[in-house]
Amino acid sequence: MPKLDFDTINLGHGSGGKLTNQLLDSGVFSVLKNDLLDQRHDGAILELSGKTAFTTDSFVISPVFFPGGDIGELAVNGTVNDLAMCGAIPRYLSLAFILEEGLPMTEFWDILVSIRNACAAAGVSVVTGDTKVVERGKGDKVFVNTTGVGTVHPKAEIDIRRIMPGDKIIVSGQLAAHGMAIMSVREGLEFESQIVSDTQPLNHLVKDLLDEFGNNIKLLRDPTRGGVGTALNEMARDRDLGVHLEQRALPIDPQVAGACELLGLDPLYVANEGLFLAVVSGAAAGAMVGAMQRTDTGRHARIIGEFTDQHPKKVVMTSGIGGQRIVNMLIGEQLPRIC
Amino acid sequence: MPKLDFDTINLGHGSGGKLTNQLLDSGVFSVLKNDLLDQRHDGAILELSGKTAFTTDSFVISPVFFPGGDIGELAVNGTVNDLAMCGAIPRYLSLAFILEEGLPMTEFWDILVSIRNACAAAGVSVVTGDTKVVERGKGDKVFVNTTGVGTVHPKAEIDIRRIMPGDKIIVSGQLAAHGMAIMSVREGLEFESQIVSDTQPLNHLVKDLLDEFGNNIKLLRDPTRGGVGTALNEMARDRDLGVHLEQRALPIDPQVAGACELLGLDPLYVANEGLFLAVVSGAAAGAMVGAMQRTDTGRHARIIGEFTDQHPKKVVMTSGIGGQRIVNMLIGEQLPRIC
Repeated sequence: MPKLDFDTINLGHGSGGKLTNQLLDSGVFSVLKNDLLDQRHDGAILELSGKTAFTTDSFVISPVFFPGGDIGELAVNGTVNDLAMCGAIPRYLSLAFILEEGLPMTEFWDILVSIRNACAAAGVSVVTGDTKVVERGKGDKVFVNTTGVGTVHPKAEIDIRRIMPGDKIIVSGQLAAHGMAIMSVREGLEFESQIVSDTQPLNHLVKDLLDEFGNNIKLLRDPTRGGVGTALNEMARDRDLGVHLEQRALPIDPQVAGACELLGLDPLYVANEGLFLAVVSGAAAGAMVGAMQRTDTGRHARIIGEFTDQHPKKVVMTSGIGGQRIVNMLIGEQLPRIC
Repeated sequence: MPKLDFDTINLGHGSGGKLTNQLLDSGVFSVLKNDLLDQRHDGAILELSGKTAFTTDSFVISPVFFPGGDIGELAVNGTVNDLAMCGAIPRYLSLAFILEEGLPMTEFWDILVSIRNACAAAGVSVVTGDTKVVERGKGDKVFVNTTGVGTVHPKAEIDIRRIMPGDKIIVSGQLAAHGMAIMSVREGLEFESQIVSDTQPLNHLVKDLLDEFGNNIKLLRDPTRGGVGTALNEMARDRDLGVHLEQRALPIDPQVAGACELLGLDPLYVANEGLFLAVVSGAAAGAMVGAMQRTDTGRHARIIGEFTDQHPKKVVMTSGIGGQRIVNMLIGEQLPRIC
């Protein structure tokens, strides 16, 4: 961190005046430096052409630092992944902070460094930003908004209306790690080894899959808040088809599964930040899962179910011992401020 | 407002599960309906080409409803105006809420209606969004982020490096109305008639000026937080030239001036939300001010000063009685959470 003559964020840093300029001049933001980012202009000028994906997310996760990541990394990966789910190559991000008065500068710095590293890993740049400060007790350390633009992959035809009965559902990784990482910190649980969030950028894997499997990929969705169970219910409802799910096929780390059992949580409803669901034509699904399993990001990928014209709008799961049950949407709030 | 079976926002509305869907299904968001907005997708797909301006702002103004506007209108106009200051035609907005548990749905509805109306007035659409909920006491009713994209006007050549000594500085309207409107509510001041915020979209006027005066316009800047005084100081510093300001030329409503005097505030540092500064070649300045004065938005426009190679990086003001003083940047926080 650059040497500063202030230790914490104060209200004046949000004034737009001398203290805002002190914060901008302090060098902390220069960690994000790139050709397009001009801290003092009202916006960035980008060269874009063709179909452009545009998505926004605010992040209010508590705690701000958690096993496997922090709010900065999450804010980059979350928006990068939403762009990837649109079939796009993420390119540029905006970054807006709402800081609580009294935030230690060391924490703010750690978040900025984390944002820089996550941008580098995903191949995106922060090109414009904003910082507001609220009084102590009117916020909670730091809230982050990232909004992203990306160029839609030329082979992408992501459209829920293209899903047909027989299309397979692939999950790219193990369920429930992010939510259980947050939960175990909040509940003070200790396990043999720490459960860490799965937060990671998915765009590189998605790009490779679109290169190879093109329009065999009909839908991409990252099951964050609400988990895999809610995401599948939304797909079934919106496409007016049923989803059949195989419980045995669901990839889940044994320790995460144990933590879920201990806390009485269903991993189908626990949030994820580093995996996606892909709905793929039956013909391509096997090859695509194979391709995914040969990558680090997709090494736990599995086909977990398929669309069916039976039981439209319903998700039905066959359990390990052969019984069937309906999987509903998450009701209420399993875990507030998970992202 | 649609008939709802809940009166306030609760934590479950941010879960991503059934209550989030209840909120989405409730019809409140359909007030923003347009062809591109799909509440349930991860992002919107836009057709863009050429130079695109991209800008973000979070809004934390308190109170949320104030004389002359509310946080929703401000959030639309703020980002629309930042795009206009880039010389762009604003087109699409993202909209992200951080709601405090317990927010009355009637207030949320009023904000959404206000957003819809402001979008219609500015000619932009909300195409993607996000809603998070934080516990009571961890936020303050509602924070809004808007991020916008717009197409740069073909005649725009907004570039601070093009400013030369002799270029004139035009202000498009009367100073300090927004900040004094907020201040008078907070301080419980009563005047003969209420001071109202100047929040308004500036993009239509800016487009007309770019059509007519093209690259005679060298810089556009909306002096929000920090006011006109800070904005001019930043320009002088960044261009390494001096600014000469004529106090007598500053347009200010007498009632606003009186309120400033009463509270010991300098209108040069009070926030504005509906005016801009334009730096224009000396040859075009007179015609441009004339054109502005014939519009409703620009009816109070005035030439207030010029750039000079004297006193580089300094703003010097000639007072009504002929004395000169240096105008510095705003120090500290004159008024927290003004936008």
